[in-house]
Amino acid sequence: MIKYPSNISSNNKEETSSLSYKNRGLSLESMINDTNKFYVFHDKALIYKKPTPIHIVKIDNKEKVIKEAFFEMPSTTDYNGIYKGKYIDFEAKETKSKTSFTLSNIHPHQIKHLKKVKEMGGIAFLIIYFTLLDKAFLYFIDDYENYFNKENNKKSIPLEELIKNGHEIKISLFPPLDYLKIIDELFF
Amino acid sequence: MIKYPSNISSNNKEETSSLSYKNRGLSLESMINDTNKFYVFHDKALIYKKPTPIHIVKIDNKEKVIKEAFFEMPSTTDYNGIYKGKYIDFEAKETKSKTSFTLSNIHPHQIKHLKKVKEMGGIAFLIIYFTLLDKAFLYFIDDYENYFNKENNKKSIPLEELIKNGHEIKISLFPPLDYLKIIDELFF
Repeated sequence: MIKYPSNISSNNKEETSSLSYKNRGLSLESMINDTNKFYVFHDKALIYKKPTPIHIVKIDNKEKVIKEAFFEMPSTTDYNGIYKGKYIDFEAKETKSKTSFTLSNIHPHQIKHLKKVKEMGGIAFLIIYFTLLDKAFLYFIDDYENYFNKENNKKSIPLEELIKNGHEIKISLFPPLDYLKIIDELFF
Repeated sequence: MIKYPSNISSNNKEETSSLSYKNRGLSLESMINDTNKFYVFHDKALIYKKPTPIHIVKIDNKEKVIKEAFFEMPSTTDYNGIYKGKYIDFEAKETKSKTSFTLSNIHPHQIKHLKKVKEMGGIAFLIIYFTLLDKAFLYFIDDYENYFNKENNKKSIPLEELIKNGHEIKISLFPPLDYLKIIDELFF
């Protein structure tokens, strides 16, 4: 089932005729969730997005309805699970920039968490999606560390660094973002 | 820092003088969360509780306040993470019964998830806590399966089965529920 964004009218030929996944109006989160569902369905991996934590202020216990709540900062990353016996953990972010990814998008404690995962024998990475370029990269936490050890005070990762040391994830239809293909090539 | 429940008055000697962890008024969830924090602090493991998923109905985007939301059924289990390179996944439940654990407390899709984790090379189990007995058991999904293959139509797990084929987790102070000790003895 392909969902088109509601703002695409039938006379907007350019957008509706494109086969690009991006033009289906799906966010990075949707692409990853669909990919993870594909993996679970085919018994390939069990990887899920963690729900966003909320702090509940008011609740109607009788009706079991939350009446007031705030979003909390997640203590770890958004996605984790198991693939071929290995623990997988990653954070996924998109950017509208065409040239670099600004690091303020990722919390320092998430980077720290990913480093710890790596130290403990897990597979830890970022997925960075350039929406306007329709390009996605898998970037291992080791490469992230190497880059920042060399380049102090950097506030962003340029696209060239991701092309050089990251791994482009092919954007397709089924699954939309087959990131485990890269894990396969490098680990198994 | 030991928190006592607010309803214990100073003349309630019996409760305040007890060293039992239960009498500190902590739930199974608190014991596991404190244990997991202990593990993270000592770089032993990275295991976290997933937030409860909610379905947001109404949100004040200006103030970033959720105005109406419902709890959703979790698609997997409550806890997962990594220990010594291994993927760990479990569900934790408490019961007020002194004799058995009723299975309606666990959703079938959670059992299915734990079986899949095991098949993929992860370590999958239940933690069952008898609040009135102050006893906790780690029960591997394999033992759960064995029990139900032998005993069809059973609607609960008797305490004897947990004593026989489960593994009692010692309830202590730091950490309150050292369940990885059992994983150590059996896997490493």
